[in-house]
Amino acid sequence: MEEYNVVRVETGVQGLDDMLGGGVPEKSIILLCGGPGVGKTIMTLQYMMAAVNRDEPVVYVTLEEPMDKKIKNATAFGWDIAKAEEDDMVEVLDIYMIPHSQGLVEPIDRRKGKIQFSIESEIETAVKRVSAKHIIIDPVTSILVHESRSGKKRFLIGQLFETIRRLDCSAIITSEGLPNANDFYMEQFLSDGVFLLGKDMRDYNLIKTIRIDKMRGIDFDDQPRRYVITSRGFQVFNSEPVLI
Amino acid sequence: MEEYNVVRVETGVQGLDDMLGGGVPEKSIILLCGGPGVGKTIMTLQYMMAAVNRDEPVVYVTLEEPMDKKIKNATAFGWDIAKAEEDDMVEVLDIYMIPHSQGLVEPIDRRKGKIQFSIESEIETAVKRVSAKHIIIDPVTSILVHESRSGKKRFLIGQLFETIRRLDCSAIITSEGLPNANDFYMEQFLSDGVFLLGKDMRDYNLIKTIRIDKMRGIDFDDQPRRYVITSRGFQVFNSEPVLI
Amino acid sequence: MEEYNVVRVETGVQGLDDMLGGGVPEKSIILLCGGPGVGKTIMTLQYMMAAVNRDEPVVYVTLEEPMDKKIKNATAFGWDIAKAEEDDMVEVLDIYMIPHSQGLVEPIDRRKGKIQFSIESEIETAVKRVSAKHIIIDPVTSILVHESRSGKKRFLIGQLFETIRRLDCSAIITSEGLPNANDFYMEQFLSDGVFLLGKDMRDYNLIKTIRIDKMRGIDFDDQPRRYVITSRGFQVFNSEPVLI
Amino acid sequence: MEEYNVVRVETGVQGLDDMLGGGVPEKSIILLCGGPGVGKTIMTLQYMMAAVNRDEPVVYVTLEEPMDKKIKNATAFGWDIAKAEEDDMVEVLDIYMIPHSQGLVEPIDRRKGKIQFSIESEIETAVKRVSAKHIIIDPVTSILVHESRSGKKRFLIGQLFETIRRLDCSAIITSEGLPNANDFYMEQFLSDGVFLLGKDMRDYNLIKTIRIDKMRGIDFDDQPRRYVITSRGFQVFNSEPVLI
Amino acid sequence: MEEYNVVRVETGVQGLDDMLGGGVPEKSIILLCGGPGVGKTIMTLQYMMAAVNRDEPVVYVTLEEPMDKKIKNATAFGWDIAKAEEDDMVEVLDIYMIPHSQGLVEPIDRRKGKIQFSIESEIETAVKRVSAKHIIIDPVTSILVHESRSGKKRFLIGQLFETIRRLDCSAIITSEGLPNANDFYMEQFLSDGVFLLGKDMRDYNLIKTIRIDKMRGIDFDDQPRRYVITSRGFQVFNSEPVLI
Amino acid sequence: MEEYNVVRVETGVQGLDDMLGGGVPEKSIILLCGGPGVGKTIMTLQYMMAAVNRDEPVVYVTLEEPMDKKIKNATAFGWDIAKAEEDDMVEVLDIYMIPHSQGLVEPIDRRKGKIQFSIESEIETAVKRVSAKHIIIDPVTSILVHESRSGKKRFLIGQLFETIRRLDCSAIITSEGLPNANDFYMEQFLSDGVFLLGKDMRDYNLIKTIRIDKMRGIDFDDQPRRYVITSRGFQVFNSEPVLI
Repeated sequence: MEEYNVVRVETGVQGLDDMLGGGVPEKSIILLCGGPGVGKTIMTLQYMMAAVNRDEPVVYVTLEEPMDKKIKNATAFGWDIAKAEEDDMVEVLDIYMIPHSQGLVEPIDRRKGKIQFSIESEIETAVKRVSAKHIIIDPVTSILVHESRSGKKRFLIGQLFETIRRLDCSAIITSEGLPNANDFYMEQFLSDGVFLLGKDMRDYNLIKTIRIDKMRGIDFDDQPRRYVITSRGFQVFNSEPVLI
Repeated sequence: MEEYNVVRVETGVQGLDDMLGGGVPEKSIILLCGGPGVGKTIMTLQYMMAAVNRDEPVVYVTLEEPMDKKIKNATAFGWDIAKAEEDDMVEVLDIYMIPHSQGLVEPIDRRKGKIQFSIESEIETAVKRVSAKHIIIDPVTSILVHESRSGKKRFLIGQLFETIRRLDCSAIITSEGLPNANDFYMEQFLSDGVFLLGKDMRDYNLIKTIRIDKMRGIDFDDQPRRYVITSRGFQVFNSEPVLI
Repeated sequence: MEEYNVVRVETGVQGLDDMLGGGVPEKSIILLCGGPGVGKTIMTLQYMMAAVNRDEPVVYVTLEEPMDKKIKNATAFGWDIAKAEEDDMVEVLDIYMIPHSQGLVEPIDRRKGKIQFSIESEIETAVKRVSAKHIIIDPVTSILVHESRSGKKRFLIGQLFETIRRLDCSAIITSEGLPNANDFYMEQFLSDGVFLLGKDMRDYNLIKTIRIDKMRGIDFDDQPRRYVITSRGFQVFNSEPVLI
Repeated sequence: MEEYNVVRVETGVQGLDDMLGGGVPEKSIILLCGGPGVGKTIMTLQYMMAAVNRDEPVVYVTLEEPMDKKIKNATAFGWDIAKAEEDDMVEVLDIYMIPHSQGLVEPIDRRKGKIQFSIESEIETAVKRVSAKHIIIDPVTSILVHESRSGKKRFLIGQLFETIRRLDCSAIITSEGLPNANDFYMEQFLSDGVFLLGKDMRDYNLIKTIRIDKMRGIDFDDQPRRYVITSRGFQVFNSEPVLI
Repeated sequence: MEEYNVVRVETGVQGLDDMLGGGVPEKSIILLCGGPGVGKTIMTLQYMMAAVNRDEPVVYVTLEEPMDKKIKNATAFGWDIAKAEEDDMVEVLDIYMIPHSQGLVEPIDRRKGKIQFSIESEIETAVKRVSAKHIIIDPVTSILVHESRSGKKRFLIGQLFETIRRLDCSAIITSEGLPNANDFYMEQFLSDGVFLLGKDMRDYNLIKTIRIDKMRGIDFDDQPRRYVITSRGFQVFNSEPVLI
Repeated sequence: MEEYNVVRVETGVQGLDDMLGGGVPEKSIILLCGGPGVGKTIMTLQYMMAAVNRDEPVVYVTLEEPMDKKIKNATAFGWDIAKAEEDDMVEVLDIYMIPHSQGLVEPIDRRKGKIQFSIESEIETAVKRVSAKHIIIDPVTSILVHESRSGKKRFLIGQLFETIRRLDCSAIITSEGLPNANDFYMEQFLSDGVFLLGKDMRDYNLIKTIRIDKMRGIDFDDQPRRYVITSRGFQVFNSEPVLI
């Protein structure tokens, strides 16, 4: 596929960038899906540190897991997030949701307290403050799980995607769980790219794979590829089949 | 099958036209089903540009994904939709749905604002303005997803199909997700043709296939066929079995 | 099985008649089940034209798909339904259902407008007008889909079957979708015969089969048999196994 | 298993009687389960005619399918039910259920009109009139299907079983559909014996089997056995494995 | 596993006792699960007669199936329950449940009429009257099936287990149906031991197996073992694999 | 992976510690999942006794199963919990839940009666009293099972996890049942580590495996490993594949 003027953003994961022919198209919204323990958070941090190393500021929205825990775990990979924050290369929104009643939820920022308006407006303010080029939300699941009406859910996710598109950023959004084949998910539907991190058992052997399910505007390797997580973060074995 | 007077419409996808014995019957409503990332939108654009090249005007109704994004992605295939719009060969309805409450939804046109009457009447006006021969709706899912009552859903989809039939156009309608075997879906039931775009994994190899599930009034190749998406759009390998 | 006085009705499909030992027993109600694109409508038309050729009048109730569309598609098989209508060999009821609210539905005849009493009384009137020997309803699904209460559903289907039995006709009734193994369906339960049209995939090869699931009062071939649809309509390969 | 004083009742199906070591224990309630077209009604008629031939009167309760239809179909097997009725060896209750609203159902006897008290009291009267030794109900499904509350359903079925036990008869009760593995069904639970009639597909070959799932008080062959239905009724191949 | 002071209770089934290393730990509550026809009731009677032979009194709570029917069927195994009752070695509670409305159920004792307080207090009185060492409830399903609220269900089962623990008896409780893998069941959760009786089909051969799923406080054979039921009751083939 | 300053806590299970490279990271919250009879409680006791042997006090919250029963069963492994309690190395909260109505539940402490405030505040008081370094909750299921609203459930589990994090303890929390592939579970999502104890059947052979599904901040063996439970507690065969 000849791609006209597609500027690429490197993900920081070499093998994944190779699968994408150099990286994701600039200003794409990528949905990163997978069950517990597949390394979604690690990949968001790896992406973030790659951006920081290119001097591109990042807004990182953490939901449920406090940022200090992620900062501590990141040291195992040699990533110094605290310093990036000091350098104003990373702006953190450290949010948790308090459900007051069915369908009524209040987001709280662990550092700044009650959120005045909405998560979207907080993201907008943060993006402007550091002139961010990237937005990371880990995981979007927390925003949606309190709402059971599918129409309202679509509305919430639609608002969030509209905000990100308007802010002209590239984005990585994680989602808990792997979509079942052929199920309909609004967030996949609206995303420009969908990456799936999967774990399978074959005769009591665990196999971990990444697969690009969808990536608008570019040609890409759509086959699943094995990956491991080591002290250097994600390693994707993109030049070999999963079963040898 | 001897087919009396069946005028064909080429889909713009060579291999698919071969499967159909030349194209779909004129004024058929085709439902194009598939999960995320199978290329439904790309096929609608390829169909549209083939029609434009034959000087047959098209009304393209985009739901959820804004048209400017599709126009930009289309450049990767060398398709100049903006020019087709200027030439009045393509009339775009760029619609998104705002759910106000469960079952109450307001459609908004991104370019013209609030929709006065209904999507059906907007389509009717657009078809008449450019004397369209084709209607494309991508995806119909957005119109239905806010409604949970099955009787009402049938009613909505019934109205839409009635409108298209009355306007005497050929139509391509996309639908998110693959129907499960033997499930009942009103939109399949009412369509003249159903094309399925599927992705399967076999031992960690991804296989993409298109299959004509139903096509009224003509004989066709009902076997699944592999396809790839390249810089020339869809390529269907219709003369070979999926597994070699 | 020795069958005492079982008068047979040929279905117009040679291989199927062979599976039945000559045809279905006179005045049986046959339920024809299958998903989209298996050819249910084609078989009803083939059955009808066979009856017409034997000078046995038919009442054909079409639901959802307008009769003019079926008449047009039938020409591909060389069947002239319009002429049969003119000759008073075929009486058409061309009905669609408008759901007003959950559980309240109004049937409309495309040709005659609002239905005064009920579909059953329309059928009765039509049967008497042409002295019909056969009733075809394609598909019964439309009558039932608006009703979600299972007790009411049984009642509706019970009424319909009672009417047909009282009118002393043979009948073919189509139903969207294949019943799942062991599920309970009222319409199967009440029918004298159940024919299943199925599509399966085996290693990306599509296999189409017909199977007689039930046929009261006669001995029959209960094995599945492959079929194709050609310009002569259904062809059933009843003398060979599905897999060779 | 040594069985003390277990008087046997022959079912009229030789191979099945062999599986049971001679027949079912006297005054057992047998539940006969299977999907459409497996021959449940034929087996009830075969059981009935065997009893009639032994001069043991039978009360036959038919639900949904009218008795005259069964009588006609029975002639294919050489069974003269009409004569047995004249001889007072068979007493028929020919009942259908009219649902008035969710949970309110009225049973009607096709021959005698409205049922004054309850199906149970009708059965009791009929048993006494002909001094019946056997009760057949085909199918019990009709009595239960209008009731969706599981507690009420248990109550209905409990009442029916209590009545049969009190009347000191042997009984065959048919049930539409095969129970799923490990599901709980009140009627199976209360029955003394459960016979399953199943249809399976293996590589597009249909296999019909009967299996005794449960039979209190006697030793029995619990393996599935193939069967066919011929002009002599059920034939069970009890001395050979299903797959040879 | 060295087991300190674990007093064993023989189940009366030799092979099962071998799997348990001599029997179940004294004062354990055992849940015996299985579908219809696996022999749950037979095993409870076999357990009871073994206790009676050791001069340990038993309270037997029968639900749904009347005790006189069980007594009669027990004679096929040579077990004289009537005599054990006369000798005050067995105290029977012969209970059935009348549902009055959803969630309101009245237990009735077939011999003594309405139950004044609760099944638990009846069990307590009975245990004290004969100084019982064992309680058998067959099946617990009847107590729970009328209640659909899961919180209330937990409460009912919790009360029952508390009562049995307080009375310092060993207990066998049967449950209709096999738990699905990984489903949560309160009664399994609270039991000290769970025994599963299963029936599987392999190529049309029925295989019956018993498996100890859980047994607190002792080491045991956790592999499934084949069993048959003969005139001597359960025989478990514990020293050989299921498939040979 | 180089791990900076990751202090380890030994689980007391040698093979599991080897899989973790020495133990779990200090102050992690571990979720231990599995169906009935896999040994969850035994592993919590083994973990507790290992901590006691290192002179690290533990708060053990038992739900549903009374502590005296666990203490008794622990003797089979040579673990003297009673003594550890006397030495103030173990503080037990022995809690059961009484459901009053749907969604209203009252926790009761078997030793101290009604719980004044909340389970969280009881845990906090207990941790302070013995200066606990570890919290064990067996099982968390009991706290959640009475609540059916998913938003409220998240809130409850969120509160519990917040409390544990605030108290700066390591924690083991058990959960009944194995999560289905890709299902979303709040408790897994919030935990730092997830260990799965599974039982599978392969050709009637039972295979028990432990797998580390997720462990934040360290590198670990993510393959499933066989285990057995003997008189020395859990033994994990971490240096060999499950199938040999």
